[in-house]
Amino acid sequence: MTIEYNAQHSPVGAFASFTLGFPGARGGLGLEIGGPADENIYIGMETREGGVFEALPFFAGSEDEARRYDVGAAASGEQSELRAFPRSSISRTLTACCDTWKTGDLTFSVYSPAKPVPDPARSSAAALMEALVPAVFAELTADNTAGTRSRRVFFGYQGGDRYSSMRRLDDLCDFPGVGQGLRTAIVSNSAGIYSGLGFTPSKCLVPDHRENLVFGLGGTGLLMAEVPAGKKKTFRFAICFHRAGVVTSGMPSSYYYTRYFKNIEAVAVYALAHFDDQKKLSLTFDKKLAGLPEDRRFQLAQAIRSYYGSTQFLESGKTPFWVVNEGEYRMMNTFDLTVDHLFFEMDMNPWAVRNQLDWFVKRFSYRDKVRLPGATKEYPGGLSFTHDMGMANHVSKPGYSTYELFKLDGCFSHMTHEQLVNWVLCGVTYFRGKGDTKWLKAHLPVFRDCLRSLINRDHPDPAQRDGVMSSDSSRCMGGAEITTYDSLDVSLGQARNNLYLAVKSWAAYVGLESLFAGVPDGKDALQASTQASLCAHTIASNMRKDGFIPAVMGEGNESRIIPAIEGLVFPKIWGLENVLADDGAYGFLLQALKRHLRTVLVPGTCLFPTGGWKLSSTNDNSWLSKIYLCQYVAESILGFSVSSSADAAHRSWLEAPENAYFAWSDQMVNGVARGSKYYPRGVTGWLWLRAGDGKRTGKGKK
Amino acid sequence: MTIEYNAQHSPVGAFASFTLGFPGARGGLGLEIGGPADENIYIGMETREGGVFEALPFFAGSEDEARRYDVGAAASGEQSELRAFPRSSISRTLTACCDTWKTGDLTFSVYSPAKPVPDPARSSAAALMEALVPAVFAELTADNTAGTRSRRVFFGYQGGDRYSSMRRLDDLCDFPGVGQGLRTAIVSNSAGIYSGLGFTPSKCLVPDHRENLVFGLGGTGLLMAEVPAGKKKTFRFAICFHRAGVVTSGMPSSYYYTRYFKNIEAVAVYALAHFDDQKKLSLTFDKKLAGLPEDRRFQLAQAIRSYYGSTQFLESGKTPFWVVNEGEYRMMNTFDLTVDHLFFEMDMNPWAVRNQLDWFVKRFSYRDKVRLPGATKEYPGGLSFTHDMGMANHVSKPGYSTYELFKLDGCFSHMTHEQLVNWVLCGVTYFRGKGDTKWLKAHLPVFRDCLRSLINRDHPDPAQRDGVMSSDSSRCMGGAEITTYDSLDVSLGQARNNLYLAVKSWAAYVGLESLFAGVPDGKDALQASTQASLCAHTIASNMRKDGFIPAVMGEGNESRIIPAIEGLVFPKIWGLENVLADDGAYGFLLQALKRHLRTVLVPGTCLFPTGGWKLSSTNDNSWLSKIYLCQYVAESILGFSVSSSADAAHRSWLEAPENAYFAWSDQMVNGVARGSKYYPRGVTGWLWLRAGDGKRTGKGKK
Repeated sequence: MTIEYNAQHSPVGAFASFTLGFPGARGGLGLEIGGPADENIYIGMETREGGVFEALPFFAGSEDEARRYDVGAAASGEQSELRAFPRSSISRTLTACCDTWKTGDLTFSVYSPAKPVPDPARSSAAALMEALVPAVFAELTADNTAGTRSRRVFFGYQGGDRYSSMRRLDDLCDFPGVGQGLRTAIVSNSAGIYSGLGFTPSKCLVPDHRENLVFGLGGTGLLMAEVPAGKKKTFRFAICFHRAGVVTSGMPSSYYYTRYFKNIEAVAVYALAHFDDQKKLSLTFDKKLAGLPEDRRFQLAQAIRSYYGSTQFLESGKTPFWVVNEGEYRMMNTFDLTVDHLFFEMDMNPWAVRNQLDWFVKRFSYRDKVRLPGATKEYPGGLSFTHDMGMANHVSKPGYSTYELFKLDGCFSHMTHEQLVNWVLCGVTYFRGKGDTKWLKAHLPVFRDCLRSLINRDHPDPAQRDGVMSSDSSRCMGGAEITTYDSLDVSLGQARNNLYLAVKSWAAYVGLESLFAGVPDGKDALQASTQASLCAHTIASNMRKDGFIPAVMGEGNESRIIPAIEGLVFPKIWGLENVLADDGAYGFLLQALKRHLRTVLVPGTCLFPTGGWKLSSTNDNSWLSKIYLCQYVAESILGFSVSSSADAAHRSWLEAPENAYFAWSDQMVNGVARGSKYYPRGVTGWLWLRAGDGKRTGKGKK
Repeated sequence: MTIEYNAQHSPVGAFASFTLGFPGARGGLGLEIGGPADENIYIGMETREGGVFEALPFFAGSEDEARRYDVGAAASGEQSELRAFPRSSISRTLTACCDTWKTGDLTFSVYSPAKPVPDPARSSAAALMEALVPAVFAELTADNTAGTRSRRVFFGYQGGDRYSSMRRLDDLCDFPGVGQGLRTAIVSNSAGIYSGLGFTPSKCLVPDHRENLVFGLGGTGLLMAEVPAGKKKTFRFAICFHRAGVVTSGMPSSYYYTRYFKNIEAVAVYALAHFDDQKKLSLTFDKKLAGLPEDRRFQLAQAIRSYYGSTQFLESGKTPFWVVNEGEYRMMNTFDLTVDHLFFEMDMNPWAVRNQLDWFVKRFSYRDKVRLPGATKEYPGGLSFTHDMGMANHVSKPGYSTYELFKLDGCFSHMTHEQLVNWVLCGVTYFRGKGDTKWLKAHLPVFRDCLRSLINRDHPDPAQRDGVMSSDSSRCMGGAEITTYDSLDVSLGQARNNLYLAVKSWAAYVGLESLFAGVPDGKDALQASTQASLCAHTIASNMRKDGFIPAVMGEGNESRIIPAIEGLVFPKIWGLENVLADDGAYGFLLQALKRHLRTVLVPGTCLFPTGGWKLSSTNDNSWLSKIYLCQYVAESILGFSVSSSADAAHRSWLEAPENAYFAWSDQMVNGVARGSKYYPRGVTGWLWLRAGDGKRTGKGKK
């Protein structure tokens, strides 16, 4: 266990993050970037003796604790009056919405409430302002009750934006603030706070003349105050972000919050006026996670934080455009992430799920033909959806993603079948979760097209259909489709005959059947049902004598994979208990997957020596988001008990020194984050909350 | 002489620069930054043998020519197909508006026309679009007449903006283009050009499949074309910049060009449609400099380029706001630079001088009191103007600059007297240059206030006035005012009794006298005349027996300075020949300054061993902008002949390897640019064009 990890403190939908926790200039106020801003952050207090200032170790040089004792360096250096608190003196408590450091007489907390965003079509400006204000909140408490002299406290930063200078907001606001350009600022309305700019923090803390704190050339900005001897004081801050106007290329769109906040000064005014409300929202949300075992609670807290850091709520014309950026990659609304964010988003703001589905239909869909492997003849294909909607504020052109290329059969190939399945799974989830019959009615043709498209991808010859994808999109131009597990080997990467995708496809057919069952013309329901049944039987029939289903079915593949069970989550959240019943129509499938999991979830196969889950027996790359999801399926659907050593192992991955800079990351190769860093996908852990907290026994799997 | 130096290729008023010429990833498409963008720029052509691509050395790794021969590295590296042209094969020709590299079968030219901006209050949209289009232009000619196979040519970049991704503009335009976010782009409408994105240039040049050139994750964008065997082809490009909306904090303002160009696509369309016009404007402007001696022509070309790189034409509300940023420091309209840009701006766009003067009056002026040195009693002061209007897109608050601090007597102190003098000098220059009597009438009260303020800064006791500043502004709070030469020692830094400032003050009084002489109430003219006379006599009376006037008069200072003569430029450009006549009222002053210059302009005093000018005998920091100005005064007013070895020395400073990255720089300490890099101020060299080209003899000074 360590306290030296970054956490993202993020507003909702602002693609912004006040990142803090990893030593050095490795956090900061990041806006629209794929990692920490790497700025110097100064949070601290004068020592009891006075004249020397101690700060949390979030500035350059503070990584090296030896500097505290290098008197020569201290005497000659510019930062002579500033040093880091001793590491051993600092404690930290992290929840989903609060992050608190304590050391000596200082307590510093950041509040970043996880807030549902109300449907903008039917919400008041007040509600939307509360949800969307692009700010997070901080409290600094300085206890000088034991002190004998007045001591200075401070909070500020050295902005890293290349295009603009640091400035004081005092000139335009009724309260002090320091900021950089139009984009970031820290403000306070607590009594006694004053602002200062200087070349260095020392120049702010110990100015030659107080009047010179206005220095506009100073790249460091601090908010400061005095705490008299014998007093304990708390100061409040808002850390604000803003970007006005059109922010995307390809298709113009702007931040939704700019409807209410014209500039960062307006953000600051609102944020300070509503500090209490926002703090309260933080504390309230945190209670939701309180019942989780600690290792899960920590991981989910980090996951929720990184998710919000990637959220970007825009509007294009007058149409809301909910975007979740893909962490370090910044791809927009990557669909195979959307389907994993789904469970969290359905609880927080289901309209946002609908919004993404609608955008996929109207701009990010296409129609193709299909080819059988090794052949060039094309057969009817149908509707599908793009992998993503763009990258790093560039919206891709209609019908195309940023990611998908042509004539490939590995990373960057098309995910036509997977994204088609994902639209169905999200669509059914949205409809069943919200009961939005108006939306369903409008989208029945889309669901029908999806069914037709799914069936066409099975086999052009109806007689040869087995419910599983066996042909590739013409978009591949002779290449082969892949799945979301693009960076893994063929065990999870190839789409055709892929076990993981087959179970999700089965779920999609089951979902479509449930949907069409309520619609007059029952032909579609029957077709969906037939395909579901075919699919389930194909899967189960691939069970080997040694108790597992190969990752790629019928192709001699030997890989054993945990995500075989992923797709089971959908009937569960749809409430289709009969589908998951041991004695139901798909009891045989459940039994097969249960046996499969029992076979593979053993050390040396799909367990690392530490007890951590290894998604594929043939690859050391394991993804936390998918582990969380599969843990839920294993526990709540298949009746497994997951060893707490697994959770401890997974947490240790996030906390490892080489990973902790990236807050929450997904792709862990032997426990080292090699990709998908600073990533939103871990909110699959939200499913843990559905599992019933008391069920875990810690006795290991059944 | 070297060809390895950066040059800024800049539109007018866009605070943008396509910087190129220094080896490595040390140029690029910079917008609103204080130095080169440090991006990889790829400009090149396939070899005659084919399969290998050679590029100008403007990408990372190309600095090290050894890489060309390191076959092992070439075989294993990602960039295997790309290498730099041999340095020795490349030639370069630089003018103010054209920059051409030739090597092998490739010729690459950049055109960045220096254009007057017409007064926006009385100009057509067409004229303003032509002047302000935020783009520069390039031509690539590939001569494959001797080739036996088709060869690929390319031009593109790897954008360094942290916030946005590279993209193809083809999706939204009728022509190919590559760009980054909403800010920068390179486009072409030449036949055969196509665009590509890839992780590396090689991935664009030799894609696995041509279809995959759309790859949205690729951080490198190239425009490419084929040149068939036996053909010679020329391709045209526009390098475009754009930033929409409010761009400044403190006081909201936007780029004036956004009136006409809504986004970068609109810039691209216009730029390509007007390529011929803009190229022609470049060639025409260059003729103005053709008659200068080569070393001066080169320096002025670089100076004009860096000036335009700093220009930023904004509007706030509906009011035009002409800004020249201060190079690497990005202070906005630093007044002591404005007065040096004056000569160039009066020829290019005198309304912009008026615009700056008006902004100084309405927002960046203040009224103070004054104190005598060492005393605290305050006497009436008066009107003056701030050092600058802000920094790096932050407009400072009314009445205050970014730079000036309190209670200091060195760098960052106030420049109250100097900026007061500068307003008068610019104001008189504008009026006399344009004959704008309407403006003069409206601003007579300001000029009167300036006169009053100047006199008050002389001495509170009229009987003790000597025409020279002897009291400091109350803004200094007990500190002392400085001059523009803030980084030099007291020889030029202290304002009181400063010889440089005294001569400029004399010029200001002379200018005011000339102005008030045409106004009914002649009292002001008389007062100005009296002060001018007092000032001139004070200066002359400080002549020492050894033939120089000390830099600080009457305080025992021994420094000998060239800028004593600076102020003489003003009566000259005002056409007040009688003021400068040997037998005129100020003949004695002219004679004194002539003697002074003759004394100081000798090796070991104000000449470096190389013949370069050394502004102060007691400091190695010499400023090219001021050297140029003083050269003009020496030659055209005082009748000196400047040795061509001086010009050669000054040019060599700019070309030195440690300076050449910064394009044009000002502050040279023993020939090394220690400050004021990437700087606009060198357009003082524009005065050379007034000097009469044939007058220089090269025989050394008289």
